[in-house]
Amino acid sequence: MTTTLYISPGACSFASHVVVHELDLPIQVERVGLRTADSPIHQINPLGRVPVLQLDDGRIITENSAILPFLADLKPATTLFAPVGSVERGQIQSWIGYLASEVHVGGFRPLNRPERYSADESAHPGIRAQAVEQLYAAFAHIDRHLQNTPFLVAERYTIADAYLGVFAGWAGRVGGRLDELQALAKFREAFKERAAVKQALVAEGF
Amino acid sequence: MTTTLYISPGACSFASHVVVHELDLPIQVERVGLRTADSPIHQINPLGRVPVLQLDDGRIITENSAILPFLADLKPATTLFAPVGSVERGQIQSWIGYLASEVHVGGFRPLNRPERYSADESAHPGIRAQAVEQLYAAFAHIDRHLQNTPFLVAERYTIADAYLGVFAGWAGRVGGRLDELQALAKFREAFKERAAVKQALVAEGF
Repeated sequence: MTTTLYISPGACSFASHVVVHELDLPIQVERVGLRTADSPIHQINPLGRVPVLQLDDGRIITENSAILPFLADLKPATTLFAPVGSVERGQIQSWIGYLASEVHVGGFRPLNRPERYSADESAHPGIRAQAVEQLYAAFAHIDRHLQNTPFLVAERYTIADAYLGVFAGWAGRVGGRLDELQALAKFREAFKERAAVKQALVAEGF
Repeated sequence: MTTTLYISPGACSFASHVVVHELDLPIQVERVGLRTADSPIHQINPLGRVPVLQLDDGRIITENSAILPFLADLKPATTLFAPVGSVERGQIQSWIGYLASEVHVGGFRPLNRPERYSADESAHPGIRAQAVEQLYAAFAHIDRHLQNTPFLVAERYTIADAYLGVFAGWAGRVGGRLDELQALAKFREAFKERAAVKQALVAEGF
């Protein structure tokens, strides 16, 4: 059994997919549909979500916040991460945590899934409007940081940036107030030009 | 300057605080208030949140999902984490990610801070009710897992369990449907009996 990364086109699994290309890892990438009862993902991950990294012995690792460091540690000398025990490594993991919790679940989820926040449909427009405010605040913190450096940590591209690339792209499609964040927009444009990003986009069918 | 962990009594920073005691680390623990403009935390972390680990050179690491592995890596042979490159390490980080995003931000935040999900106060009771449903679903996944093993990964207590201990405690105070989750309740009771947990509770003034 080959180590396999399960992804869904356009989902947050894109971050892990990009890192497979960045590091040229011998990992099979498998596209699956989500939100259908017959998707093969339900046999692999009881939560029915991507990304999932399935190892050659069948064990799985879920969550970008775990898969990204695991992938990087397959190439210990990579500049995409940092040595165990270094503050840089802690800061890379910190940005990944911020993106997973504040940006993805804290912001994009209520925007895209207001039904998870209220059973009352009449409340959904208010929830979506407030989600844009939360996203603005969450991204403004990132934007301030990127005004002084092109990348999140240590002035080099790391797995935290691969993860930010996904959400910077989503932010561009939300538009509105988020368009005010110019350092974020600059980051998004630079991200798109990376060879690994282009390769992953093609592999996802874009 | 001594390495310092900034915490706030009763906050999620309790997980990192417990691990300082579990590993008997030479780290100063500093209590700060939150939600007041004059709290010293604003000078340390622009987001005004805990936990923050401030290193002896002044640099900071935020987010439990980064601080917990950083603390464990200060004692490389600890059984609280796992070797770099191991699947166990990936699975520990995965549960930490799940707790940070699905449980804390996905569930407890809309329950405790409905104003962050709608500016319309009349929507808040519906948001809080739905948050309990989200928490039930998020914890039910953990409860099913704990029916077969006393700990999240590898049948031993790890930093993922220290983090779960915080939210298991919060779940006990929510009550209602969450009380149906008996494996979670059993975990919570066992967690409270740990010496490091008792030490951290005393240090936080409980």
